[in-house]
Amino acid sequence: MNGLDFEGWACPLPLRDHPTVVMGHGGGGQLSADLVTHLFLPHFQNEALAGLGDAAVVELAGASQRLAISTDSFTVTPLFFPGGNIGSLAVHGTVNDVAMSGAQPLVMAAGFILEEGLALGALDAIAASMAAACREAGVALVTGDTKVVDKGHGDGVYINTTGIGLVPPGVVIGPHRARPGDAVLVSGNLGEHGIAIMSMRKGLDFQVSVESDSAPLNGLVAEMLAVTTDIHALRDPTRGGLASTLNEIARASGVGIELDERAVPIPAPVRAACEMLGLDPFYVANEGKLVAIVPAEHAEALLARMRAHRYGANAATIGRVVADHPGLVVARTGIGGMRVVDMLVGEQLPRIC
Amino acid sequence: MNGLDFEGWACPLPLRDHPTVVMGHGGGGQLSADLVTHLFLPHFQNEALAGLGDAAVVELAGASQRLAISTDSFTVTPLFFPGGNIGSLAVHGTVNDVAMSGAQPLVMAAGFILEEGLALGALDAIAASMAAACREAGVALVTGDTKVVDKGHGDGVYINTTGIGLVPPGVVIGPHRARPGDAVLVSGNLGEHGIAIMSMRKGLDFQVSVESDSAPLNGLVAEMLAVTTDIHALRDPTRGGLASTLNEIARASGVGIELDERAVPIPAPVRAACEMLGLDPFYVANEGKLVAIVPAEHAEALLARMRAHRYGANAATIGRVVADHPGLVVARTGIGGMRVVDMLVGEQLPRIC
Repeated sequence: MNGLDFEGWACPLPLRDHPTVVMGHGGGGQLSADLVTHLFLPHFQNEALAGLGDAAVVELAGASQRLAISTDSFTVTPLFFPGGNIGSLAVHGTVNDVAMSGAQPLVMAAGFILEEGLALGALDAIAASMAAACREAGVALVTGDTKVVDKGHGDGVYINTTGIGLVPPGVVIGPHRARPGDAVLVSGNLGEHGIAIMSMRKGLDFQVSVESDSAPLNGLVAEMLAVTTDIHALRDPTRGGLASTLNEIARASGVGIELDERAVPIPAPVRAACEMLGLDPFYVANEGKLVAIVPAEHAEALLARMRAHRYGANAATIGRVVADHPGLVVARTGIGGMRVVDMLVGEQLPRIC
Repeated sequence: MNGLDFEGWACPLPLRDHPTVVMGHGGGGQLSADLVTHLFLPHFQNEALAGLGDAAVVELAGASQRLAISTDSFTVTPLFFPGGNIGSLAVHGTVNDVAMSGAQPLVMAAGFILEEGLALGALDAIAASMAAACREAGVALVTGDTKVVDKGHGDGVYINTTGIGLVPPGVVIGPHRARPGDAVLVSGNLGEHGIAIMSMRKGLDFQVSVESDSAPLNGLVAEMLAVTTDIHALRDPTRGGLASTLNEIARASGVGIELDERAVPIPAPVRAACEMLGLDPFYVANEGKLVAIVPAEHAEALLARMRAHRYGANAATIGRVVADHPGLVVARTGIGGMRVVDMLVGEQLPRIC
């Protein structure tokens, strides 16, 4: 166990036995997972759903290729933030979830819930950003829906996007496929989206020169698959950040994950903002980064290809999959110690996507 | 023109040049159509979207059959109503939109936007209804997403559902395919969903024994396609009711539509409630009915098959497609006159789906 001894450790957790919905149920951490596992899954039992990937992969009778399908609702406030807005975010978020199955996203559906009183000019700017994001990702928005809710309800606009893509033959990527010996890669700097959103919040009086990293990752994934189709797991660490993503993979695969804390690329302004706000950057959301679990022998070739891509310039190896402590993520700290990187229970940042 | 003379007619319309979103933009009538046509479509130009059917029909490279895709956000208040709740409604609404392309819906994605403070018991009941509705329709919910918004925002829960199905080879159904001489069929009683919702609204002090007609129509459509695949248009008259649906078809096909007002099946309690509230039942929403535009020679065989189905018992021929007055829907009234059945501009009933 590399010197880890869990005897006698205590992990103080907030009460998780809520009779009502709390903000943390939407935070992408343990409470979100509980809601899915204990409330939704028992009602909707099927193999695709139980996979709990970012996208469901299904075979339709009569279709020769597997479909990857992902849906996401976006409720971010403020609607406009440094580096993007809810429109571009809604496209990137779903494009990336589809891409994390190895599929190329092709078509998208969008549902808008508008608040009475929203300026049509703002909606137009949001739609323009969505369209530009679709063009960059090579995705066609083929159908949509619009509802209006009373003033004071909603927050200007909520957007749901559903993306559909085709999974290339032979590609099987999923959070359950991590194996001891695999390398853990990240495609670039972490924490920028969450901190950019935080910097816009009322009452948080700090200034940072951090822009959201919101970006489509399907092109990067296609480059990686051109190196090898033998990629085990891909995830974009959005809500709950790197820590929650790696915990999900560790649990789904029944393996341990060891991070080298100093190898994780975190820009200085993000680190500074996190220190000021008392946040752990491992839990801060990203919208244009991916984590890849790959066989160690492919790691260097993949990193080289990723670094040549616009959205992978700072790609790095940040750790490895181990047989020890299955289900647990640990980090080697800068001073040579070890710490457990647990799953976020509630959320650090409300409604960052 | 059958005695119609539009010279000198005036149609007083509310101001449509709004700088902000108004409730009517979500009502399914002219304002909704304006928003789509003038704001969304210019940004997202593609053939599938321009079709403006209830579902987009797309061909993916590598897939041997066409996919039908539809998305819908549900914001109904109250969440529970006679005959259903937002969960069953969210499944039926999207199943039906996919079915209106002639496709059999197979898989569904669901996005939940939960309001902080929602009782988990209510969410559980909603999820149970969704699951039961999925089972009846033969649809698998394969992926989902949950977000939480602050208390006071949202209305308990909003649900977005996206349905995907396969369109049988040779089937081409769309609002642009109505031809003069076609018969206009409806699958049963109209107005029940809208009136059931209205009866629950605070401040509307009336009691009716009307339940929502919310139901999955994919089985009924399959029965109809077994009679003939030569069905020209199918629509479920939800927001905006029968009148808006027929206006959309008349415009898309460049034809006129003539209704026999007395042939439209409207139950006595719906008629009574409409009279009391000053509503026209032609504009009231339905969630378990379809309108079919079919070649006249198939009308009787289709009606017979529809009447044998659980959800088509009161199916009837209610009018015909004509070459006269293209883009316009008119009704022969009970006393032998004619009236124009225009598109709803805003909405009669706020947020019925």
